[in-house]
Amino acid sequence: MDITESMDSFLKPESVAIVGATRRTGRGSFNVVENLLEIGFKGRIYPVNPNMESILGLKVYPSVTTLPLEVDLAVVMVPREVVPHVVKDGTERGIKAFIVITDGFAEADEQGKALQAEIVEIARAKRARIIGPNSLGVINCFHNFSSSWMVPKLRQNPVALVCQSGGFLEGFSDFALGKGIDLGNMCDVDFAEVLSYLEKDPETRIIALHIEGLREGRRFLEVAKRVQQEKPVLVLKTGRSEAATRAAASHTGSLSGRQEVHRAAFRQAGLIEVNTVDELGDIAKAFLHLPPLYGNRVAILTPSGAGATMTLDALEHYGFELATLLERTVNANREFFPPWSPPLNPIDMMTAGVRHGYKMVYTASLDALLEDENVDAIVCIAGFPTLKTIKAAIAKSNKPVVTWVLGEWGEGLRSRINETGYQVVYPSPERALRALAALRDYSAKRAQSSEQSLSTMM
Amino acid sequence: MDITESMDSFLKPESVAIVGATRRTGRGSFNVVENLLEIGFKGRIYPVNPNMESILGLKVYPSVTTLPLEVDLAVVMVPREVVPHVVKDGTERGIKAFIVITDGFAEADEQGKALQAEIVEIARAKRARIIGPNSLGVINCFHNFSSSWMVPKLRQNPVALVCQSGGFLEGFSDFALGKGIDLGNMCDVDFAEVLSYLEKDPETRIIALHIEGLREGRRFLEVAKRVQQEKPVLVLKTGRSEAATRAAASHTGSLSGRQEVHRAAFRQAGLIEVNTVDELGDIAKAFLHLPPLYGNRVAILTPSGAGATMTLDALEHYGFELATLLERTVNANREFFPPWSPPLNPIDMMTAGVRHGYKMVYTASLDALLEDENVDAIVCIAGFPTLKTIKAAIAKSNKPVVTWVLGEWGEGLRSRINETGYQVVYPSPERALRALAALRDYSAKRAQSSEQSLSTMM
Repeated sequence: MDITESMDSFLKPESVAIVGATRRTGRGSFNVVENLLEIGFKGRIYPVNPNMESILGLKVYPSVTTLPLEVDLAVVMVPREVVPHVVKDGTERGIKAFIVITDGFAEADEQGKALQAEIVEIARAKRARIIGPNSLGVINCFHNFSSSWMVPKLRQNPVALVCQSGGFLEGFSDFALGKGIDLGNMCDVDFAEVLSYLEKDPETRIIALHIEGLREGRRFLEVAKRVQQEKPVLVLKTGRSEAATRAAASHTGSLSGRQEVHRAAFRQAGLIEVNTVDELGDIAKAFLHLPPLYGNRVAILTPSGAGATMTLDALEHYGFELATLLERTVNANREFFPPWSPPLNPIDMMTAGVRHGYKMVYTASLDALLEDENVDAIVCIAGFPTLKTIKAAIAKSNKPVVTWVLGEWGEGLRSRINETGYQVVYPSPERALRALAALRDYSAKRAQSSEQSLSTMM
Repeated sequence: MDITESMDSFLKPESVAIVGATRRTGRGSFNVVENLLEIGFKGRIYPVNPNMESILGLKVYPSVTTLPLEVDLAVVMVPREVVPHVVKDGTERGIKAFIVITDGFAEADEQGKALQAEIVEIARAKRARIIGPNSLGVINCFHNFSSSWMVPKLRQNPVALVCQSGGFLEGFSDFALGKGIDLGNMCDVDFAEVLSYLEKDPETRIIALHIEGLREGRRFLEVAKRVQQEKPVLVLKTGRSEAATRAAASHTGSLSGRQEVHRAAFRQAGLIEVNTVDELGDIAKAFLHLPPLYGNRVAILTPSGAGATMTLDALEHYGFELATLLERTVNANREFFPPWSPPLNPIDMMTAGVRHGYKMVYTASLDALLEDENVDAIVCIAGFPTLKTIKAAIAKSNKPVVTWVLGEWGEGLRSRINETGYQVVYPSPERALRALAALRDYSAKRAQSSEQSLSTMM
């Protein structure tokens, strides 16, 4: 079975066995079967547990050997000593894909290491594949499928995350995940294979990686280098400190290695390295919603002078420059502005807005900036009520616009954003410009490599 | 009138004239009178406008000269050419405090500079004081008073902010402001004076400054150095870039100056310098809700191995060390944990939680850490539902605990936080540890200076 077929079994099974299904239900019960029903999984579910006959209206099978012969995937959560038996019986029953959620393997002790080696050997002999152990497995919002305990929000976004911790699947990130794969101890299926799969996955446009430790680093980098020419690949390497390296070893059983070495390798492969989960989400959002950014000249539209000053600090920090507006742009709305404060860049529109109507001045100013060829990208500064105005204005344009939303980040933000449908918002100018810089750098690299392939062809 | 009396007029007027009151009402009308009524201001309000007789049930005065003789404060928002006349008539009517909201002064052009000099001269002659011009003035949640257009959330928190932009009063910050003073162009009342006032203000425990430019830097630093020995003083200097320096000049008419010079001076004065608005809010929150932190040894309680790894990265970055737990602590809950994963620091409690009950294991682990003398501070990693559990556990203790809250920051966060009443939460380990580091550094400095004063006394 090639990796595409295997990954399809992991991410889009038509039938799944839940081996070691719990009888507890309700909040805090970590019941995968209940979760699958709740998110509307359309395939067949076969719970396995010798101590009960049915759960939530489903027949429970007493053992793996009694399962039907057409199971695509087994999700395994029995005690660690029992896992080798389940994998053995499963492969004999024709199962080719296993997600092992159970922990206590290579990350734990010598016995765990031996058990992990054992399950790999059993699977290899039957050409079956394993994700995990010590993993929450997968989420696929396009297929209403998850092997995790938690209920994912089903958003069919073309963003895939490959990680080494279940926390990333549902807990950490603020961005809309369409697919998530937690590799856990990574005893078999690894980053390079999943990357190869996602390269060709039409439901994935952006790939995010959370890496604690790598094995076969050279192969990973070769694959990553190829994939990033098609789709942006963001990477968050955790386990940078000494103490974290030790903790990571006990978390996924892999050494997280020297940070500088990783950093250099990621850069060479053309990956977009990020330092925090915030940054990962911020940049993914920009790639998801914005056109490419070819250029460095930024305009700022603001109701706040101090906001403009802070944005300028961030602008300089991320290597942008302040666009020099066309005369046409300045003159377009000059009449609304006090004579001593013409609409130069940054355009501080508060006084004009108070006098002539906030929404009108904001829209007119943004319209003029969108049509100015000297402006490559725009940073809006705005309160929540202005988001709709911005969305309406930018609908006609193909210029990257990011917005620093003023006000308490948190209070009703998500619902207001969903209301307006305008997504490219950030809680600070630093985060807005950081995301824009990543977009600019990737756009430049892509443009360069298409030029190169063009010149090779000619 | 000394600065205390003047500042009382600005922040707690018993009667206020709104000169240039607008007749528009409702959303987007920037009506200060309406705003004062909405927030429940208890003093007398005297709108001034020659073109109307009443507004919102209040008598409107045709001119400043017809005002009663007992007005504490005038909020001025007439066209800039008229401002000198208002200040002159006002001082003659006995008004000793003016907030000038109108812009177009020193930040604008030569005429504006001259007008600004003129109002200063008029006020000085009558020993009256001016905040502004080009300022939104003040907010005082303890007195239900605001000269701003916007409706502040009235939270009587002992945090005061002094800034040079109205955006800070209500728009930028995520923290609960009790008092806010926007100095705008700072033609008269300045940072040093407001700091002196806040030093003795019993309603203020923490002071935050947003500075674009300083005048009389030496005097400011002398005062700041004294005040920070009583109360933590956080400072955000904006206008760091070349372009921002130019923009700040046109924003508040003051030169923002070289960043390195400011930085060195702030450090010498013992101020806590922050780089972003996020950081300002994060650190203020820690000072507001946590006891002092004397020590460097941190324990981590987590449901996620990867979360622990990321927290360790942040821990090292901010100069903390991982606490070595007492044997007593490790043994207290060992029975719940798998033999290969005892509750050492970081305590990864997920497996134990799944087996024995999440809330029970979380509480028991946190209790043990709170009692461990080898632990100076604790970082909790937790989903929203666990916040109540954490709050209950730490109620008995006087140890600083910060929490990295997993999950989508934004969605209902504020209301959930208010529900639990537990405030010291952060959206990432980096932000949690950064705040804790500021608390540690200030605590150490305070301890050192009390030691010094003790040794001086003996």
